[in-house]
Amino acid sequence: MRPEEARPRLAQLGFRADDVETLAAHFLDAEARGQLGHGLSRIEWLETWDELNTEARPRRVESRPGYERWNGEGALGYLTLEAVIRSQLTDPPDRARLVVCSRTFPTGSLGYWVRRLAAGGLVAVLTATSPRRLAHPDGGEPLVGTNPLAIAIPSSDDAPIVTDVSMGAVTHGDVLAGRARAEELVPFGGSQSHKAFALALGLQLLVDALSPEDGFGAVLLVAPPEADPVPALRALAGGVRLPGDSFR
Amino acid sequence: MRPEEARPRLAQLGFRADDVETLAAHFLDAEARGQLGHGLSRIEWLETWDELNTEARPRRVESRPGYERWNGEGALGYLTLEAVIRSQLTDPPDRARLVVCSRTFPTGSLGYWVRRLAAGGLVAVLTATSPRRLAHPDGGEPLVGTNPLAIAIPSSDDAPIVTDVSMGAVTHGDVLAGRARAEELVPFGGSQSHKAFALALGLQLLVDALSPEDGFGAVLLVAPPEADPVPALRALAGGVRLPGDSFR
Repeated sequence: MRPEEARPRLAQLGFRADDVETLAAHFLDAEARGQLGHGLSRIEWLETWDELNTEARPRRVESRPGYERWNGEGALGYLTLEAVIRSQLTDPPDRARLVVCSRTFPTGSLGYWVRRLAAGGLVAVLTATSPRRLAHPDGGEPLVGTNPLAIAIPSSDDAPIVTDVSMGAVTHGDVLAGRARAEELVPFGGSQSHKAFALALGLQLLVDALSPEDGFGAVLLVAPPEADPVPALRALAGGVRLPGDSFR
Repeated sequence: MRPEEARPRLAQLGFRADDVETLAAHFLDAEARGQLGHGLSRIEWLETWDELNTEARPRRVESRPGYERWNGEGALGYLTLEAVIRSQLTDPPDRARLVVCSRTFPTGSLGYWVRRLAAGGLVAVLTATSPRRLAHPDGGEPLVGTNPLAIAIPSSDDAPIVTDVSMGAVTHGDVLAGRARAEELVPFGGSQSHKAFALALGLQLLVDALSPEDGFGAVLLVAPPEADPVPALRALAGGVRLPGDSFR
């Protein structure tokens, strides 16, 4: 699919105009960063869905100091995260806020969402669950998703650091696209893959324990920074490319 | 050092009786779990410190709904985390609380602290910074600590799942004890060690950005569970040993 096809094909699926923009922006950003498994191939994937509810709207079901809970209500997870991100930027927490997102799937490139929060001056940590694809290194059935952890830290030099680590050695998108074999989708780490498995397991249970609703979800922590550690770290790193740096 | 020497030698260092109990309980738990780098060897390590402030008391410097900040005030990080854990168990959050711990070092086995929160019915996520020991996989000076991430999930079956993952392929304690060579202290993951490096970097900057004080620190998220996902996961896992399960 060519980039200029993204918007018409999303519109054809029935999404309203602002949702088309939200989805296209996410997929095109993923393409530009080389994250092809989160890119335009996902539009083709959405075109295969039997039921695609383009009318559903995510809803904030609880809000109190330091805590919010959202429910996707059947909308695509991308659209729930978009609503959550916009809401945090409009009304940032005084000190910190945990945002639990129930029924939120798929969530796409988590780095994309936290990068926008960092661009708006907020520290952000985001994880999300997805179908069980990783087995325990000792064997058995798949128990956990690739459950990425993304962290974004704003910086006074206007170059936030964004880390976004999936616990899989390859992505499910790579498998779908034929760039990796299904049996390569194991916890990363080789002889220490028990570590990545443990991270995926802990993050999955965290999301599952904090959401009162069944189904996939996401957990976001957002906070204004109390310090500005990125410039000094970048100076110490010298010319080494750090996560989130432009690679072009 | 034999286990029965722990308390007298800590008392000899000048710690008051309840701090001796706190420290001995942590070190002996680490020994029992085979985490020797966090165990009794640390008493010998404390005995080498030029200045050991046994009078300092950690202090909660800010408290509001969903947020607390603590300052170690020169006390050992173990004692700050003990005070924080006790405080969370006594006064748990309604929905969620972020606890930023400034000047909190050393923090020991993070799994120990979150396991106690889970035993008290709380979901807990904890990370902490430590001296820079991991270089970027492309080379250069050490930029980040081994910065572990520990997650504990309570369970109705009274067997919480506790994950505790250091981003180093070996621990600094292993190097100190001669069980690993210094050059083995790299991000774990072999050919994908950029992932563990990114996790350590993100977690380090998270702690540094949330603490207004210089120095090592810790960040804890604590929340009551809204669901009970562990029994079903354990059933799905069958006989596979999960993180936090007893290994004896």
